[in-house]
Amino acid sequence: MHEIRRDPILGRWVIIASERSNRPTDFTINREQPAGGVCPFCYGCEAHTPPEVLAFRDAGRPPNSPGWKVRVVPNKYPALRIEGDLGRRAVGIYDTMKAIGAHEVVIESPEHRAQLADLPPEQVTLVLDAYLQRMLDLKRDPRFRYILVFKNQGADAGATLEHAHTQIIATPVVPKRVSEEIDGCRRHFHLHERCVFCDILHQELELETRLVATNESFVALAPFASRFPYETWILPRRHAFRFEDIRRDDLQLLSALLRSTLRRLDRVLDRPPFNYVLHTSPCDGEDVAEVFHWHLEIMPKLTKVAGFEWGSDFYINPTPPELAAEMLRGVQAG
Amino acid sequence: MHEIRRDPILGRWVIIASERSNRPTDFTINREQPAGGVCPFCYGCEAHTPPEVLAFRDAGRPPNSPGWKVRVVPNKYPALRIEGDLGRRAVGIYDTMKAIGAHEVVIESPEHRAQLADLPPEQVTLVLDAYLQRMLDLKRDPRFRYILVFKNQGADAGATLEHAHTQIIATPVVPKRVSEEIDGCRRHFHLHERCVFCDILHQELELETRLVATNESFVALAPFASRFPYETWILPRRHAFRFEDIRRDDLQLLSALLRSTLRRLDRVLDRPPFNYVLHTSPCDGEDVAEVFHWHLEIMPKLTKVAGFEWGSDFYINPTPPELAAEMLRGVQAG
Repeated sequence: MHEIRRDPILGRWVIIASERSNRPTDFTINREQPAGGVCPFCYGCEAHTPPEVLAFRDAGRPPNSPGWKVRVVPNKYPALRIEGDLGRRAVGIYDTMKAIGAHEVVIESPEHRAQLADLPPEQVTLVLDAYLQRMLDLKRDPRFRYILVFKNQGADAGATLEHAHTQIIATPVVPKRVSEEIDGCRRHFHLHERCVFCDILHQELELETRLVATNESFVALAPFASRFPYETWILPRRHAFRFEDIRRDDLQLLSALLRSTLRRLDRVLDRPPFNYVLHTSPCDGEDVAEVFHWHLEIMPKLTKVAGFEWGSDFYINPTPPELAAEMLRGVQAG
Repeated sequence: MHEIRRDPILGRWVIIASERSNRPTDFTINREQPAGGVCPFCYGCEAHTPPEVLAFRDAGRPPNSPGWKVRVVPNKYPALRIEGDLGRRAVGIYDTMKAIGAHEVVIESPEHRAQLADLPPEQVTLVLDAYLQRMLDLKRDPRFRYILVFKNQGADAGATLEHAHTQIIATPVVPKRVSEEIDGCRRHFHLHERCVFCDILHQELELETRLVATNESFVALAPFASRFPYETWILPRRHAFRFEDIRRDDLQLLSALLRSTLRRLDRVLDRPPFNYVLHTSPCDGEDVAEVFHWHLEIMPKLTKVAGFEWGSDFYINPTPPELAAEMLRGVQAG
């Protein structure tokens, strides 16, 4: 059983392995499934994963067998476990609890080598639909405060398996970065009675220099204070605090813009490793309905993060976002 | 001229290259000096760096010539430039200023291959003394709010040159992480009228399970909520909010404990790449004298940081700090 500990200064949470079996030279936590010769995410290997919690497959086909289009399974080596109560307690001045949560893997396609950007538009919509269905289901568990959806593509971005997949982690605490974003949004709202992301969209759509691409419902842009070269955010044009409220037609428009943005990054940067993370409201987020605006942050991994960044949360970005946006606009996304 | 931009949601600062000369495939900012065949940090290559701002060498020897023990030079390709005023201004809803600051390199020894932990104790004391002298000098510039001292050792920790060195960056803003730490310390002080780091030291010295090593004035420990395997902090036993107030005899005790801790890490982890960062008070830090406690954070780079961490500031650490401390205590540091 792992443990969740809180840093007493910053309020940052850490999942710590409590098994003392780790040798000092054994540092890879199994964030995903182990490879072990066969790919557990391919057709015919369904028995190598825990039983699926969701799959899109033709009617009448049995679960945990081939024929699916998108499949969601619990992580075989989860960072957080689903069973049990939290056991929140103090250890002297420290706070700790059991590492309760959910850790699932969305297998984005049966194709072993295709990455998300290579899939047909309908398939990308199915992937986003899987996020949506799992989030709606996981939110029903009152122990969970946040559902974190993130994707690592490429070894330099932390992916341990090549087969395209996304991870979903439901946590019993609100992650620090999410609380900080909400605090920042609240400060802006308190001053201006407006959502800061709506203000950003207004300014960026007028200025156009940092726009990457847009459609009827979504905007992809290079943020003004990009931490990383070619960092790109996708935001809904209309204010919405949580992804889960997305309409069916907007899910298609989002998948179209996500797919084309990833294809632009692939063209300009020759298939870079990247992470993307869905930033949405906490599970009980009704109180941030006016102030928070959900969005997706895509972070290509092209530079090394070193002592400066770790010590300061201050970043050095060698590529101006205006240049990144211009380069991304300048290529065909089709 | 680079630019410093502020993220309007999180208040995070980013240095952004304003030169539009970066090709999309050219992502390495010259954080240090370029190699170019000869090592600019070796004896006889003093002309390859800007003129030194500090050097410890025998009396009578001319500056910028061999014979020094520790040498400090401005970074040839600085992230921040020393000349000019800040030009703080608004760009619509955003905040920006010119990238004014200092960016210096402390060359820790003339030996090309020796790393800090390999140097004799007196030499490590000279390195720390160079940090001290440069911080005292840079603090006299009223444009600077914070002096960040950090070291990247090994390519995986972001070092671009092998020759042992530390970087010092003086910034015209207080980095977000520093403000957050101070906020956290203030909250604890407000509740308890005690310094949170003093409380941590008290509990850890009593418990002993997370202690790595101690001496008369300093404690090296594995923090309760370590983000990274073998993360180790060194703290002064007696409350002190800024490194610059350190006494001469304590400088020796600090260098002894730093050296032995790095040697322990080298033994257990076979010379791991690492970053360390000095966490001290802002330049005008008198108002945090009671609440903040300076310390050094050493972060071995053994795991990959991926989407989960970037999206949440939530970490997964496969090595319990109790095990890390036990392993580090179990080896000879001499």
